Amino acid sequence: MSADPILVLTTGGTIDKNYFDALSEYQITDSGIPDLLKEARVALPFRVVELMRKDSLELTDADRTLIAAAVREAPESRIVITHGTDTMTETAKALADVPDKVIVLTGALSPARFAETDAPFNLGMAFAAAQTASPGVWIAMSGQVFNGVKVKKDRAAGRFIPLD
Amino acid sequence: MSADPILVLTTGGTIDKNYFDALSEYQITDSGIPDLLKEARVALPFRVVELMRKDSLELTDADRTLIAAAVREAPESRIVITHGTDTMTETAKALADVPDKVIVLTGALSPARFAETDAPFNLGMAFAAAQTASPGVWIAMSGQVFNGVKVKKDRAAGRFIPLD
Amino acid sequence: MSADPILVLTTGGTIDKNYFDALSEYQITDSGIPDLLKEARVALPFRVVELMRKDSLELTDADRTLIAAAVREAPESRIVITHGTDTMTETAKALADVPDKVIVLTGALSPARFAETDAPFNLGMAFAAAQTASPGVWIAMSGQVFNGVKVKKDRAAGRFIPLD
Amino acid sequence: MSADPILVLTTGGTIDKNYFDALSEYQITDSGIPDLLKEARVALPFRVVELMRKDSLELTDADRTLIAAAVREAPESRIVITHGTDTMTETAKALADVPDKVIVLTGALSPARFAETDAPFNLGMAFAAAQTASPGVWIAMSGQVFNGVKVKKDRAAGRFIPLD
Repeated sequence: MSADPILVLTTGGTIDKNYFDALSEYQITDSGIPDLLKEARVALPFRVVELMRKDSLELTDADRTLIAAAVREAPESRIVITHGTDTMTETAKALADVPDKVIVLTGALSPARFAETDAPFNLGMAFAAAQTASPGVWIAMSGQVFNGVKVKKDRAAGRFIPLD
Repeated sequence: MSADPILVLTTGGTIDKNYFDALSEYQITDSGIPDLLKEARVALPFRVVELMRKDSLELTDADRTLIAAAVREAPESRIVITHGTDTMTETAKALADVPDKVIVLTGALSPARFAETDAPFNLGMAFAAAQTASPGVWIAMSGQVFNGVKVKKDRAAGRFIPLD
Repeated sequence: MSADPILVLTTGGTIDKNYFDALSEYQITDSGIPDLLKEARVALPFRVVELMRKDSLELTDADRTLIAAAVREAPESRIVITHGTDTMTETAKALADVPDKVIVLTGALSPARFAETDAPFNLGMAFAAAQTASPGVWIAMSGQVFNGVKVKKDRAAGRFIPLD
Repeated sequence: MSADPILVLTTGGTIDKNYFDALSEYQITDSGIPDLLKEARVALPFRVVELMRKDSLELTDADRTLIAAAVREAPESRIVITHGTDTMTETAKALADVPDKVIVLTGALSPARFAETDAPFNLGMAFAAAQTASPGVWIAMSGQVFNGVKVKKDRAAGRFIPLD
């Protein structure tokens, strides 16, 4: 198992959604990921970089180019990316040809700020997969670590399933 | 990555501690693990078997023999064991010669029933490691997946660290 | 102190907001108030009636007429109303001439489903005020029990303050 | 309704119990009350004084004398006391002859640090009762505001009930 440092890139998504009474709306704000990692008492070296704060439906090709560049240029070889779930598989494809790095995308169907949320479990899966999986792109959602280019989101069922 | 079913064996420990006002004390009760897996929206097949409800300091050799038997006899080849942290490494040793199975021990430093707890993150790590690691015994704690026989708990620091 | 039964009318508002990944949006759903009262181990007799599920900015005069009718016609003389905060004071005015009943409006600036929320504290204030206050309309928010027609919401500051 | 400042005296009890892995035990520590009041967005002036950190079964006559002195000498006339539930009624009796002050005792059957707890609801009840009740000693538990000298704890049922 690798004890190499992990880079966490945050891009937004449901996992970081918050609610603002003053606006009567719900927005992505400062990432809750550092708090989750503190609560999980993570002792492995890591750093968190906030790349963007977007719903994944709003992510553009330029955004994906930026994410891929951040992954390629990072000194770390083990990368966790928090991401909205709706286009997580598209970003996985955009990262498929990055060599020699273990890249794990994760997110949540329920915001991390909720009392009931899949966020900490999913982030735990991503951390473990970043240490134990072979180089490539992985998606950690629905209790499962998927090959990142062989999975899709079943929006109606609220879960990720393997591609046929 | 394996999508094989996962067996979760619960043995007690801090992760399942509860507080009872009527007794003015704190006890291990029915496991909160099934609720954590539901909250995490785990879609991978799994079953949970409650083996015992013990503080890990109270576990005897007979208990470890029972745990090992449950692991060996299980039809599943991927096993997650929730366990108290104080003697988690001893149980790991007792499982070290089980062949052909991926065994991941995890637990928590703060009870799962607490608002702030490392339980869901750790359980997520264990689920991912059970799918991605090679056969053997692993410990998923402190944000890290350790070789189960090359790790110790630093009680004062409240974390697991690699053995020298 | 009165131990009379309490009627809880829910009308929606931030306190009952939920987030739906399948819609990528945030809606008012089934009320979380019964769960909050169970968690609070309320032993006083009460019943909960869901009147509507609306953001308080969407409440119409007809809605307020309906709320007032529900209050007047209830056999209970002690009424708690959960309500969005933006027009809570308007509904308080619409209830100001209901005779012989203790009516307490409350709500939350952060949804009850969030890990950090003012919802249970506010609901506790409302329950106590319904038992201890004299007949009339009260608003329980921001740690304070206000005369319901002598208070306003300071939206920017995120708190209720007495009217000059 | 009074908007006078509220003094919160903390004495320990289940509401402030925490769990310590390093000790494998469960102790009363620094009070979580200030965090609860922040989360509840209390805007009314208040101050919190930690008097002691005790299980209420351990409270002595000397402790109750100290609590009564703190109440009498406080400049505030509205006092909330957080307290273990087992001897809450005894402390209420010891405060029964304090003149001209509204004193509300509260606590919790489940620690405030738990994800599911009656603590914030009970503290909200106590804050409201301190503003709305007449001078005397009150106990806010089980969803109800009781006359402090006409109530007992039914330990088996896990609730407070009026004295016959």
